[in-house]
Amino acid sequence: MRVLLLSENEITSLLSMNEIVEAVEVAFKEYASGYVQMPPKLYLSYPQYSGDLRTMPCYLERLKISAVKIVNAHPENPKKFGLPTVMATIILIDPENGQPLAIMGGRNITAIRTGAAGGIAAKYLARKDSQVVGLVGAGVQARTQLLALHSIYGNLEKIGVWDVSSSASEKYVDEMQPGFAESKIVSVERLRDAVEGADIIVTTTPSRKPLVMNEWIHVGVHINCIGADAPGKQELEPAVL
Amino acid sequence: MRVLLLSENEITSLLSMNEIVEAVEVAFKEYASGYVQMPPKLYLSYPQYSGDLRTMPCYLERLKISAVKIVNAHPENPKKFGLPTVMATIILIDPENGQPLAIMGGRNITAIRTGAAGGIAAKYLARKDSQVVGLVGAGVQARTQLLALHSIYGNLEKIGVWDVSSSASEKYVDEMQPGFAESKIVSVERLRDAVEGADIIVTTTPSRKPLVMNEWIHVGVHINCIGADAPGKQELEPAVL
Repeated sequence: MRVLLLSENEITSLLSMNEIVEAVEVAFKEYASGYVQMPPKLYLSYPQYSGDLRTMPCYLERLKISAVKIVNAHPENPKKFGLPTVMATIILIDPENGQPLAIMGGRNITAIRTGAAGGIAAKYLARKDSQVVGLVGAGVQARTQLLALHSIYGNLEKIGVWDVSSSASEKYVDEMQPGFAESKIVSVERLRDAVEGADIIVTTTPSRKPLVMNEWIHVGVHINCIGADAPGKQELEPAVL
Repeated sequence: MRVLLLSENEITSLLSMNEIVEAVEVAFKEYASGYVQMPPKLYLSYPQYSGDLRTMPCYLERLKISAVKIVNAHPENPKKFGLPTVMATIILIDPENGQPLAIMGGRNITAIRTGAAGGIAAKYLARKDSQVVGLVGAGVQARTQLLALHSIYGNLEKIGVWDVSSSASEKYVDEMQPGFAESKIVSVERLRDAVEGADIIVTTTPSRKPLVMNEWIHVGVHINCIGADAPGKQELEPAVL
């Protein structure tokens, strides 16, 4: 039995955002049409190490493919071990005979497909003529979310990026600007300057208090809130909702 | 990041039944003492291929080790593809940082540790002077169950083996007898002859109707029923219970 092994680096060099946006949109449609089995995640918790593990099996019936993703979240990894916060492995399985087809690093796929999901939300929910993007947070997700918006909207006029650490938002500009020849990516000192006037706002912080205030945003803006993924986390002033 | 990869063949050559019996007993004790996280299995079903997938995460807190086993059961595999019924992969994970330590074939481990579990049950529940074993079914589990009993009881006097296919029980004797110099392994035509007079009976069939009758067995016999692992399956006449 032969199993394809793909490292994180190989995954990165094989994937393009355009392909991922297309694949994630297909998966969303299959799910909405009732052709996907995806039971709720199963958790293990490692309280003494401030971490957890999530097991995520799924089966796309019409596409005849199944997979299990195993993801760990260990927020103290970067500081304690110089390792990424998220560790992930994906096993692709042939539903016809249960044979593993591939075992691959799942960290980069996770980052890219979460970006793609935000892009697809914007594709259907944001204004078609969106040109200005405001990014709150300048980490991994701020990168893949912008790549996905770019894949869907083509060239954007202006991208404002804010982070609690101004060196992080400046690094973001240095890294991302070369890939966006037609767009202007600007690091801003005040959060308000990133979101005011934006057509699409993307928040990707671990904040536990509101960052984006209602008075700063205008009617018709689309907001992808990626960061507030657990009880106690919050990025928007409640009045926004 | 380095991950150890172990094939099914490597697993087989690395494992000894004595070690596994010891390890499984430790795991049972940890579980009974409340130091194991092991949420209920998560299932995917592949009805069009008569198969399913089970995701099984666990964490042994005091041993500081975590793992996820992914097991497929595809009963038609041998006939349709010449593949085993059970396909499995195990990922060993460091709970401290979520890093995968090893990815290994899980089929042989599954077979051996299920055998070991039966052996440990017999160690605590069967008579200490047990000498005669009756095997109902002569498949993979009949092999690992006997190896585990041997690991615990040392030399057994006699092992009677019955299978619905007499060529299967004869093949069992040919394969297993060389490893049991001090014991006599006998293939029997009538199921009754395997279980009557046995101190330990091990049933490992996929039967859906009773095979072992109450009048054939005597007081004090220990029975490991391995086969009847789902609703509708049955190996014992209800009066036995």
